[in-house]
Amino acid sequence: MPLQSNSSAISKARFEAFSDGVFAIVITLLVLELRVHPTLSAPNLHKELLAQLPRLGAYVLTFLPVGVFWVAHHLMVGSAERVDRVLLWVNLFFLMWVSLLPFSAGVLGGYPNSREAVALYGCNMTLVEVFLLWVWGHITRHLLDKNIGRGFIQTGFRRIQTGLLLYSAGALLAFFAPTWVALALFWLVPISYVFLQAVSDASPNAPHLK
Amino acid sequence: MPLQSNSSAISKARFEAFSDGVFAIVITLLVLELRVHPTLSAPNLHKELLAQLPRLGAYVLTFLPVGVFWVAHHLMVGSAERVDRVLLWVNLFFLMWVSLLPFSAGVLGGYPNSREAVALYGCNMTLVEVFLLWVWGHITRHLLDKNIGRGFIQTGFRRIQTGLLLYSAGALLAFFAPTWVALALFWLVPISYVFLQAVSDASPNAPHLK
Amino acid sequence: MPLQSNSSAISKARFEAFSDGVFAIVITLLVLELRVHPTLSAPNLHKELLAQLPRLGAYVLTFLPVGVFWVAHHLMVGSAERVDRVLLWVNLFFLMWVSLLPFSAGVLGGYPNSREAVALYGCNMTLVEVFLLWVWGHITRHLLDKNIGRGFIQTGFRRIQTGLLLYSAGALLAFFAPTWVALALFWLVPISYVFLQAVSDASPNAPHLK
Amino acid sequence: MPLQSNSSAISKARFEAFSDGVFAIVITLLVLELRVHPTLSAPNLHKELLAQLPRLGAYVLTFLPVGVFWVAHHLMVGSAERVDRVLLWVNLFFLMWVSLLPFSAGVLGGYPNSREAVALYGCNMTLVEVFLLWVWGHITRHLLDKNIGRGFIQTGFRRIQTGLLLYSAGALLAFFAPTWVALALFWLVPISYVFLQAVSDASPNAPHLK
Repeated sequence: MPLQSNSSAISKARFEAFSDGVFAIVITLLVLELRVHPTLSAPNLHKELLAQLPRLGAYVLTFLPVGVFWVAHHLMVGSAERVDRVLLWVNLFFLMWVSLLPFSAGVLGGYPNSREAVALYGCNMTLVEVFLLWVWGHITRHLLDKNIGRGFIQTGFRRIQTGLLLYSAGALLAFFAPTWVALALFWLVPISYVFLQAVSDASPNAPHLK
Repeated sequence: MPLQSNSSAISKARFEAFSDGVFAIVITLLVLELRVHPTLSAPNLHKELLAQLPRLGAYVLTFLPVGVFWVAHHLMVGSAERVDRVLLWVNLFFLMWVSLLPFSAGVLGGYPNSREAVALYGCNMTLVEVFLLWVWGHITRHLLDKNIGRGFIQTGFRRIQTGLLLYSAGALLAFFAPTWVALALFWLVPISYVFLQAVSDASPNAPHLK
Repeated sequence: MPLQSNSSAISKARFEAFSDGVFAIVITLLVLELRVHPTLSAPNLHKELLAQLPRLGAYVLTFLPVGVFWVAHHLMVGSAERVDRVLLWVNLFFLMWVSLLPFSAGVLGGYPNSREAVALYGCNMTLVEVFLLWVWGHITRHLLDKNIGRGFIQTGFRRIQTGLLLYSAGALLAFFAPTWVALALFWLVPISYVFLQAVSDASPNAPHLK
Repeated sequence: MPLQSNSSAISKARFEAFSDGVFAIVITLLVLELRVHPTLSAPNLHKELLAQLPRLGAYVLTFLPVGVFWVAHHLMVGSAERVDRVLLWVNLFFLMWVSLLPFSAGVLGGYPNSREAVALYGCNMTLVEVFLLWVWGHITRHLLDKNIGRGFIQTGFRRIQTGLLLYSAGALLAFFAPTWVALALFWLVPISYVFLQAVSDASPNAPHLK
């Protein structure tokens, strides 16, 4: 019954559309954590806006990696021949941790000097990277298009592992070092993406993933 | 007037796109129920984060079934030859109850020991399953692609009925048993999806719906 | 320069995708107006949930017409040969009033017996219908596919005018009659859509718009 | 390895879909800044609604340009042959400032007479226009479809520069002139879009960008 099993297959197009939708909404919900209290009197607005600076920082710190996750996810799924049930579930868990980021970013923006807030943010990002690693591991082991080269696969793993290392180190260091150390590690992630790309773009035809 | 009636038809592609959009937004809005009060003093953050654990539980408890509903909806609509007006309306009511889930999940997360909150959550999920059953019943009776096998149809009904039974039982038991009994039934739904699939995936070529 | 003017054209596909996205988000944001105060004590939850009933009513009262607007918009744009600049602007204003509905529905849900809330809701819906009428008028005058029949055009106008009449009458009556009269007129809109369709579906091949 | 480099390319379709999603969500989130306090007593609703008028103004003032940015973005990307990494990053920063608009619009709506609020709004819009200019500059220098005419390119630059000028002038004047002067400049942007189009539409075959 080939048509039957065909109809029970998940189309890659809708799988991508659903994931894209979640990414676009998560990235846009981040702004809801920036909010001036509506009953504030006007002369205090200046102070209140300055007090929002850590929240703006958490907004930028989270917006850029989510954008990078979207690109990485897009390239990874694009290199898969098809979508199977395991990928569907692993991806759902991945999206669940991505969707939690507005909360963790909001807590970090509200309490940038709190060890708990830094650790929460680091843990959330670590979970995102772990499930992204699982997505890529599953695709490369079981679903990979034959034409994808080894270099592309390895670049992917290296980039995810870099993020995973930085975020998990930050989560741990939150309890053993000043919080700015962990925050510096978190900031390294988006900065390294830009920098690594500038370097790798210099060597033409190099395979890129993130 | 064939072109006229053609132009008044709902294209399956846009029907799917609209439904996908609603699913993606609902699943992402769930995070808004997790929220640390902005005027909290930093030393109390630890306690506040622990107090958010039931809300995190309600988040996971709802995120996974909504993801499953999306897959089920996708497979169901994918096995329909076309979309008619009745399906349009039944689907709109289905989406209306799905869109209500962030509210019910938020109440459950805030009051996990309240009989009313548990019953509200169970009722909302029951309504979702009832309208999903209606969607599937209407498609299989009137709009089904000829190549879809009986096994696929019946697996679909069995899966929806399992969810319907567990959620409605939980809603009723909320008033006659300790609330953890109902919550355990609710958790059975996402767990059973994972477990049933692990079993059914062991038999190759078996028809899957959810 | 045919290719140049081609590149400055708005593709119908992206015009539709943007409108669909706005509809899907508006319809899902409606749930945010239902919200139990997080610091409420558990024994009062029962009363608080009952107090949310008017908000649930406003949710249903608004969800169904927005779904209908989406279908109508879809059929209208589907019967246009192309999208021009005027349609782009009229549609943007139409979407602006649609996007305002979560606010008006929230005020109505919070103050169902207030003349101001009822009038606000009626005015917002009237503006939505006026711009939908403009959309349909512009398409039928300038952009219509030649194969669309007169019956289809007229059914479209009749349906929009029915909604326009009921909403504007409700907005006016809010100040001269008990508020339940206006609310009854608002409820007539989704009910009439279901009823009219049941009737028109009985006559096969009849042209439908909404 | 042509297929490998192909798989690491960003498809224009998904790039557009992601950007469209962000635009649709941002434009819809603007309404969340309009909110009547839920514990307000009914007789004061009239006053409260009047007090929301500046917020409604900020809503309209922001909704229309975001719609225009969407159209402009659509036409610009549509005139690119392909999407490269630089465009991906510049676009991500562009979307980051667009996504911040609900916050800035909310502050402006809450404090329309505050110099800080007006300057914040002007700065945010200026950043949006700067990155849109960068997007257009990068596309026209590196990625442009050969069939795009000079007039189309220049109209694009002129329109972006007009917006950039008005918004940045408003941001600066916020501190040196009455706030209504800056607000008038901000209102000139959507008004000029409508007016300029009415004029340019009068000359047939004229290249349009925004």
